[in-house]
Amino acid sequence: MSLPKEVIIKEVGPRDGLQNEKEEIKTEDKIEWINQLSETGLSYIEMTSFVHPKWIPQLKDALEVAKSVKRKEGITYSALVPNMKGLEGAIEADVDEVSIFMSASEAHNKKNINKSIDETYPVLGEVVDEAKKAGKSVRGYVSTVFGCPYEGKVDEQQVINVCKNLFDMGIDELSLGDTIGVANPIQVRQFLNLISTEFPKDQIALHFHDTRGMALANTLVSLEQGFFIFDGALGGLGGCPYAKGASGNVATDDLVHMLHEMGIQTGIDHDQLLKAGQFIQNKINKPLPSKQMNICTQKALS
Amino acid sequence: MSLPKEVIIKEVGPRDGLQNEKEEIKTEDKIEWINQLSETGLSYIEMTSFVHPKWIPQLKDALEVAKSVKRKEGITYSALVPNMKGLEGAIEADVDEVSIFMSASEAHNKKNINKSIDETYPVLGEVVDEAKKAGKSVRGYVSTVFGCPYEGKVDEQQVINVCKNLFDMGIDELSLGDTIGVANPIQVRQFLNLISTEFPKDQIALHFHDTRGMALANTLVSLEQGFFIFDGALGGLGGCPYAKGASGNVATDDLVHMLHEMGIQTGIDHDQLLKAGQFIQNKINKPLPSKQMNICTQKALS
Repeated sequence: MSLPKEVIIKEVGPRDGLQNEKEEIKTEDKIEWINQLSETGLSYIEMTSFVHPKWIPQLKDALEVAKSVKRKEGITYSALVPNMKGLEGAIEADVDEVSIFMSASEAHNKKNINKSIDETYPVLGEVVDEAKKAGKSVRGYVSTVFGCPYEGKVDEQQVINVCKNLFDMGIDELSLGDTIGVANPIQVRQFLNLISTEFPKDQIALHFHDTRGMALANTLVSLEQGFFIFDGALGGLGGCPYAKGASGNVATDDLVHMLHEMGIQTGIDHDQLLKAGQFIQNKINKPLPSKQMNICTQKALS
Repeated sequence: MSLPKEVIIKEVGPRDGLQNEKEEIKTEDKIEWINQLSETGLSYIEMTSFVHPKWIPQLKDALEVAKSVKRKEGITYSALVPNMKGLEGAIEADVDEVSIFMSASEAHNKKNINKSIDETYPVLGEVVDEAKKAGKSVRGYVSTVFGCPYEGKVDEQQVINVCKNLFDMGIDELSLGDTIGVANPIQVRQFLNLISTEFPKDQIALHFHDTRGMALANTLVSLEQGFFIFDGALGGLGGCPYAKGASGNVATDDLVHMLHEMGIQTGIDHDQLLKAGQFIQNKINKPLPSKQMNICTQKALS
């Protein structure tokens, strides 16, 4: 079995992590944290989300954060945008890439976006067109790919249709989200096998959540299928919005640790990553759930 | 790829879990907990350890526990024994199986058993002989198979030699321990591939620790190689003796959950397992680290 020799890690902690944290983080601390992340060797950082503060008050300082981060050459700085209004902010902040999002399941899409899947396409299509005109690359997140908190399993063909529609809009990369962390390795293998013929692997990222502890096993089967782009949130920041206190995003530090141990390169300095993890851990004022941060904390105490 | 359709789970929480917990558990609670475990569908429960209370005071009630547990037909009840003195206790309690243990690395063996590897063999050999005479089956644990806290990586050939010597003594099953949770999936695959030709798979158990979050990924590659016996501790009870507060044994509940999701049978009732987990969680008076217990706790709070 041959695995990819190099893997690309996309850090979504400043957005997907912080949006699920209760503790209010000062704007200056967010900026400092992202600046620290820029020094870890990461090539991609999703800085924030330009959603209405009514929905995600934690990221109401999106514009200031995105404008103030010290950009480092070679790193793609992105932000999530739900609509044209969000896109305006992202363009004003001159991010490199914008991310749009929708769900593979009707019920989750309705709850999250307040539109049916079909109603969502034109809204996102306009965002993609305008983003492209502004010279931005576009990432598309598909949520609930492997299961929905309201509908359970999601029909694979339906997921593929959503992905196709997003690619048809002209997005550059698709991030397949296991939003509630229910995917199991056999399911991931089957699904990736199915889409291997549909989409190019260099345009597909896997976005696993570790709610049930299977994220690294799912990463492994993805690697076995030749996929090599993975999202993570440092320290496992953010938790799961559907099970308070439970894990959300796979921890970037645990993911990078496993990959390095397997001899797979990421370009990331694991020690620097943990330092940045300690910084944000102090700010959220509670232990981050990742194994690597936990080991760090225990070492510091002993 | 064909995976085993059925997997055997061996619950070591009452021994390997409790021996690493600080909170003193009442003898009656240990007995009650093991009785609850007997109702989950588990076919194997390691009840306790007959080591000198000076070393593991948490299990000083080994004899009373092992004698008082209500034995259920079809379940193998075992206990760890370090030497002849321990074996006497185990025989007095009439356990079904005894477990002996040693390390694959000299330094860990010396620290743990206070003997060199070569000095350990005759001591264990006598225990195996006497156990067999008493009609007991014998399980052999090998620690630090994939890494040692003092020596780092352990030479694979040295591990195989230790395993061979234990089988030559007449043990019935070998449990390969990733004592400090450092094994990565590539390493596990390579090692299991190596020993596949040496030892029969129905006599090899994998004993993973989840200290670095790789236990389920390592389980997956073991399944892919056709291995089907795994140790676990319910809830991830016990932690890691080398990194306080960090995870130790892979959580039986997380392991069983993944297997069931993958369509692999264990014969275990996951709900019953979680009920038994809640019982011991209340007794140790802190949240168990497993994902499944965490989700349970959050559900109960919401």
